[in-house]
Amino acid sequence: MDLDLARRLSVSNGSKILLFVMDGLGGLPHPQTGRSELETARTPNLDALARESACGFTLPVAPGVTPGSGPGHLSLFGYDPLKFNIGRGALEAVGIDFDLRPQDIAARGNFCTVDGGGAISDRRAGRISSERCAELCAKLRGIRLDGAELFVEPVREHRFVLVLRGEGLSDAVADTDPQREGAQPLEPRATAPEGEATARLVARFVEEAKRVLAAESPANMLLLRGFARRPDWPSMSDVFKLRPAAVAHYPMYRGLAKLVGMEALPAGPAIDDSIATVRENWGRFDYFFVHYKYTDTAGEDGDFDRKVAKLEEVDAALPSLLALGPDVLMVAGDHSTPAVMAAHSWHPVPFMMRAPWTRSDACDAFNEVALQKGSLGTFPAMEALPLALAHAGRLTKYGA
Amino acid sequence: MDLDLARRLSVSNGSKILLFVMDGLGGLPHPQTGRSELETARTPNLDALARESACGFTLPVAPGVTPGSGPGHLSLFGYDPLKFNIGRGALEAVGIDFDLRPQDIAARGNFCTVDGGGAISDRRAGRISSERCAELCAKLRGIRLDGAELFVEPVREHRFVLVLRGEGLSDAVADTDPQREGAQPLEPRATAPEGEATARLVARFVEEAKRVLAAESPANMLLLRGFARRPDWPSMSDVFKLRPAAVAHYPMYRGLAKLVGMEALPAGPAIDDSIATVRENWGRFDYFFVHYKYTDTAGEDGDFDRKVAKLEEVDAALPSLLALGPDVLMVAGDHSTPAVMAAHSWHPVPFMMRAPWTRSDACDAFNEVALQKGSLGTFPAMEALPLALAHAGRLTKYGA
Repeated sequence: MDLDLARRLSVSNGSKILLFVMDGLGGLPHPQTGRSELETARTPNLDALARESACGFTLPVAPGVTPGSGPGHLSLFGYDPLKFNIGRGALEAVGIDFDLRPQDIAARGNFCTVDGGGAISDRRAGRISSERCAELCAKLRGIRLDGAELFVEPVREHRFVLVLRGEGLSDAVADTDPQREGAQPLEPRATAPEGEATARLVARFVEEAKRVLAAESPANMLLLRGFARRPDWPSMSDVFKLRPAAVAHYPMYRGLAKLVGMEALPAGPAIDDSIATVRENWGRFDYFFVHYKYTDTAGEDGDFDRKVAKLEEVDAALPSLLALGPDVLMVAGDHSTPAVMAAHSWHPVPFMMRAPWTRSDACDAFNEVALQKGSLGTFPAMEALPLALAHAGRLTKYGA
Repeated sequence: MDLDLARRLSVSNGSKILLFVMDGLGGLPHPQTGRSELETARTPNLDALARESACGFTLPVAPGVTPGSGPGHLSLFGYDPLKFNIGRGALEAVGIDFDLRPQDIAARGNFCTVDGGGAISDRRAGRISSERCAELCAKLRGIRLDGAELFVEPVREHRFVLVLRGEGLSDAVADTDPQREGAQPLEPRATAPEGEATARLVARFVEEAKRVLAAESPANMLLLRGFARRPDWPSMSDVFKLRPAAVAHYPMYRGLAKLVGMEALPAGPAIDDSIATVRENWGRFDYFFVHYKYTDTAGEDGDFDRKVAKLEEVDAALPSLLALGPDVLMVAGDHSTPAVMAAHSWHPVPFMMRAPWTRSDACDAFNEVALQKGSLGTFPAMEALPLALAHAGRLTKYGA
């Protein structure tokens, strides 16, 4: 749904909507058994819920498109992932809970290795440890620039975030990362006239950083890409009249949720921690996004059995989620991560919604085969929230 | 389908298309039986038709969006309901068969009750009778305005239509209805410079009306909203190369049909009247929109059993509809009106099309569960007409 239409039709009414996201939920059949992770897992609670839900599949972006975490989640939050883009640098910064301000410019950084001639021999500097990354970032923080405050924040392994804060900065700066080994790092160049001053600042930073890192090994240089500002998006409270909260342990998902105006609540690593957080805050919000990461991690590791086990872990926790009594409960995924592919994929993602006023359908289990009998069919993930709002009585009639 | 594309691809070929609309067709399960109105009704003729039709569900506007009668019908006529908007005043005027001209400005009016201090104590004046409404409208017609001819037409109960006819009028006038009780009626204000003269005329009308109504009780004041012109839309004959006719007893649906260039034929209240009208005019037109209201009325009244009975009434009349021998017959609804909700809803609407060249599907009955096996799936209602045109041999090839 177009956000202008959502803004026009949505009303607040005190009902509660809960979106439970299993990251990388969708799967594919195991070559030996012909059964997917969901078909293999014993999930009596999810299956029972499917029998009383409207079921189907979400399409995160478009047919055939494999989404990153950003688009996968934004669409579930009701935002068109093809319209609401976030620059890599900004995503990285909000993803580590950095307080990125509207005028800041953020870039994603890699420590890398260059040879004697200055050519890149390893774009990831042998994936140095996160500890080493933090030490190198601390050194880089000693660099002083005229006209901008500097932040260098470690992410994980060889990855860091560079943030410039100051007056009149611009994100019109090209990547210094040539994205291939054997090439020299590129000069920071302005991609538009307004980026020239910022490009000069970045060039100065790179020059200083080269000196600071010269004696290091293997991380004797850095690469920057995705210069970006924090996007200025309409909030879920403005558009959908919700008081939204995010319950996510991983900073990336908290960051994404904050970009659409959710309050990010503290959440421990375990699913029970998340549910406890929702329970404690039940009265303060009317929309909860609860994120469960481990299905995706197992999928990305190509670990079919662990993904099965994680699905069973969610299944065991489901009754305590239901006990909260949400008016509308959506069980969804941001994308598929089939263990047999060990990667994100484009496959439509299992979805169910238990709510008042759903139609009967013939789904007797929550898996990729049973859901094909669902009444919702395969639909754009960005329509899940409008549908939930309708079932919660939060959308008024369109047209006389 | 975009109208420009339709204009380019459509041809006339003498085939006949019949769209039979059961208003508010879609339903939801009865809590006691778990079966919807359509599942409950005995509809042997509709079920037999489903077995030889392509089946599915239409989505009138968008997932989660509950349509009013305007968008619900316009989409079935092939017009994008998000692009083709009709202002409330204009819809109300065409809905009572008022001959609204292109330069006229129409507003929806309510008789209301104000207290001694001028604050609104009842926005609907206790829903005065339609007779009383007509008497008050007749009194208001005595008001004379410099620069505009005035029409005040009763609708039903407390509702009426105000139409201003003259040179240089504008619909850029804000509502005088504050939409809540306890507030004063608002001054008619221009929402853009070109609305200033019209706003002054409206202010003058309201002032005079106040005097005329002062001694009335409870309808001692009026509220106006939705100032609008008659929309100027491309006709179905222009876009789709059809000679279209509407057979609808209720003025609202005749009005909507006329806005897309249909000829509105006289039709009595009973379904047999409508079918007789189609039969008498079979040679003159090649597209017939036949409207059946009573499924919606029963649904809005929350009367599950009456909706079931109305579906059975349609079922009984179906053979005489089939006997007309349309090349393409669509059985559709403008939206769902589940009796258990006693209101319009956002649920996809049962649909079937009997036509040459349809694929087989597994639908053995015409209801919300059986249609989930339909070959058409859930698709935008505005694509129903292009699909019918294709099956009628009325759409040429796109591209070489």
